[in-house]
Amino acid sequence: MISAKAYAAATARAPLAPVSIARRDPAADEVLIDIHYCGICHTDLHCARDEWGGQPFPCIPGHEVAGVVRAVGSAVTKYQVGDRVGVGCMVDSCGTCPACLAGIEQHCETGTVWTYGAQSAYRPGDPGTGHTLGGYSSAMTVKENFVVRIPDSLPLDRAAPMLCAGITTYSPLRRYGAGPGKRVGVIGLGGLGHMAVKIAHAMGAEVTVITTSPGKAADARALGADKVLVSTDKAHMREGAASLDVIIDTVSAEHDIDMYMQLLRLEGALVLVGLPPEKLKVTAFTLTGARRVFTGSNIGGIGETQEMLDFCAAHGVMADIEMIPATGINAAYDRLSAGDVKYRFVIDSKTLG
Amino acid sequence: MISAKAYAAATARAPLAPVSIARRDPAADEVLIDIHYCGICHTDLHCARDEWGGQPFPCIPGHEVAGVVRAVGSAVTKYQVGDRVGVGCMVDSCGTCPACLAGIEQHCETGTVWTYGAQSAYRPGDPGTGHTLGGYSSAMTVKENFVVRIPDSLPLDRAAPMLCAGITTYSPLRRYGAGPGKRVGVIGLGGLGHMAVKIAHAMGAEVTVITTSPGKAADARALGADKVLVSTDKAHMREGAASLDVIIDTVSAEHDIDMYMQLLRLEGALVLVGLPPEKLKVTAFTLTGARRVFTGSNIGGIGETQEMLDFCAAHGVMADIEMIPATGINAAYDRLSAGDVKYRFVIDSKTLG
Repeated sequence: MISAKAYAAATARAPLAPVSIARRDPAADEVLIDIHYCGICHTDLHCARDEWGGQPFPCIPGHEVAGVVRAVGSAVTKYQVGDRVGVGCMVDSCGTCPACLAGIEQHCETGTVWTYGAQSAYRPGDPGTGHTLGGYSSAMTVKENFVVRIPDSLPLDRAAPMLCAGITTYSPLRRYGAGPGKRVGVIGLGGLGHMAVKIAHAMGAEVTVITTSPGKAADARALGADKVLVSTDKAHMREGAASLDVIIDTVSAEHDIDMYMQLLRLEGALVLVGLPPEKLKVTAFTLTGARRVFTGSNIGGIGETQEMLDFCAAHGVMADIEMIPATGINAAYDRLSAGDVKYRFVIDSKTLG
Repeated sequence: MISAKAYAAATARAPLAPVSIARRDPAADEVLIDIHYCGICHTDLHCARDEWGGQPFPCIPGHEVAGVVRAVGSAVTKYQVGDRVGVGCMVDSCGTCPACLAGIEQHCETGTVWTYGAQSAYRPGDPGTGHTLGGYSSAMTVKENFVVRIPDSLPLDRAAPMLCAGITTYSPLRRYGAGPGKRVGVIGLGGLGHMAVKIAHAMGAEVTVITTSPGKAADARALGADKVLVSTDKAHMREGAASLDVIIDTVSAEHDIDMYMQLLRLEGALVLVGLPPEKLKVTAFTLTGARRVFTGSNIGGIGETQEMLDFCAAHGVMADIEMIPATGINAAYDRLSAGDVKYRFVIDSKTLG
């Protein structure tokens, strides 16, 4: 057993506070990672406050983990002590179902084991709990197949958020063919949105940011956007009608899907990557009139996550972050709720306790 | 000018009544068709009653036309007098935009000219009106490129409904790969639904009908369904979870999209072909959790309509109809609203007046 420092929510109404936890010694196929940085994803906040329901407590969030390998199990072949590595939203899956065999472990038919809050029949929780504990922690033990390598040219702090925000946007951009000649829209300019703009731009697509705030236009262009549409300006939105091939929709609250889908060309796709709790509404004519596609995407597979990191390293793409000490987590949650961050908070794990 | 008999709605509140109309003499690239039969589509009812708004009157509905060529223009090459032909939902398009060049004239960027009620800048309406007049008529004049050939093995009366109901279901079934090894769901067992079942079965797919009425199970199996799911039976629906590759959704009223989409496997698609006037609601998790696709489809191109007729002729697929005289149109509308038809009303054009 390895002792580690962490920040945990004891209940849905408690602020996060320092705790000591135990991590298991690495099994033969596992590595022990010293965590250097962990990004703060909006999902962390939903879970720590049990906003989606069913969250086990204590809850230690964190699935944007970057660190260095401290120890390896006897059968580990991919990593050595000292390697720079990351862990994203998953730490295990059955490995044998069609989805796992296809490299989309996040759709494991038996049940993906999420990095925190997961209770699985075939994988025990972390010591002392019945569920997994996440990356707001100084160390964690993870199966090597769920660890990815962080290329040397990516600083660990700016790489951490890419383990969720990066892959969540990269995967649908790749699947829907973002590249030269393709016109990509991005709705929302937060943690996910800013990565979507950078990655789509690096892929060679023409990028349009759609925002409610005219004041964000300069920021959007600085990130790589070619155009900015202000969604509250109806004439502006009409000009953009039927102009986009794919839209990455990062909005986590209710919003007007019909209005955004009018921006899509024939057979264009709007891909939800945010998770609004409210049902979203769409008119039949929006879908039938141009065979438009309303769909969603949930992170990406482990192999695709490695591909994303390698692609971003090759193109100099990394997250824009605001570093905080662990004592700042609760204040960061409040600022995140208000959309006040450019563009991702990252916890400096040295400050955990 | 050719005089023709027809049934028209003079206003949105008037029942359909007999009228005499004029059709133009065929231009060089047009054919004059003696109409033998015309199917009654739910869209006819929406338009005759102006339920979607903006309908020009008098309204002569009808876009499921089957008949025989009476005369051809000087430049017509595809058809001769006496040929058995059909006309569907479109009678013209620009012919030069990317959609027209791709054979999807129903998505013409300049504006498809619909068979009735269309007011187009580049195509005049029928004589005496500023808009097109449809197939509840004894004759019509149509550009040869918007006419299809009805194979000899298909009776004209049972072929008529295929010009809309057939192509509307064939096109998305083909696009989403219906065939051996694919599992196709069909929601609703009306004019569109019964064609979807027959065509998907002929394509070699495993077909599941999803219905609110347990009493329709025998009918569904007789049409070619392998399985029937009763949507009001929650245990039954749970058994069907994640079992289908594509669903053809023919429902024209508000319905629970989340419930039906749970039947789809990873990356499965629900394709709307009905047009409910209410907005449809879907939760983000339904889309992101399995990359499911919510989309729609609107008839099919002219080339694809010919392909559908040839496919159906080769497989002995045709519509199940109830023949009515023109004096029965208003009563048929009431029965159609109540879902009381197996499965398509067809007007015998000899009875028009």
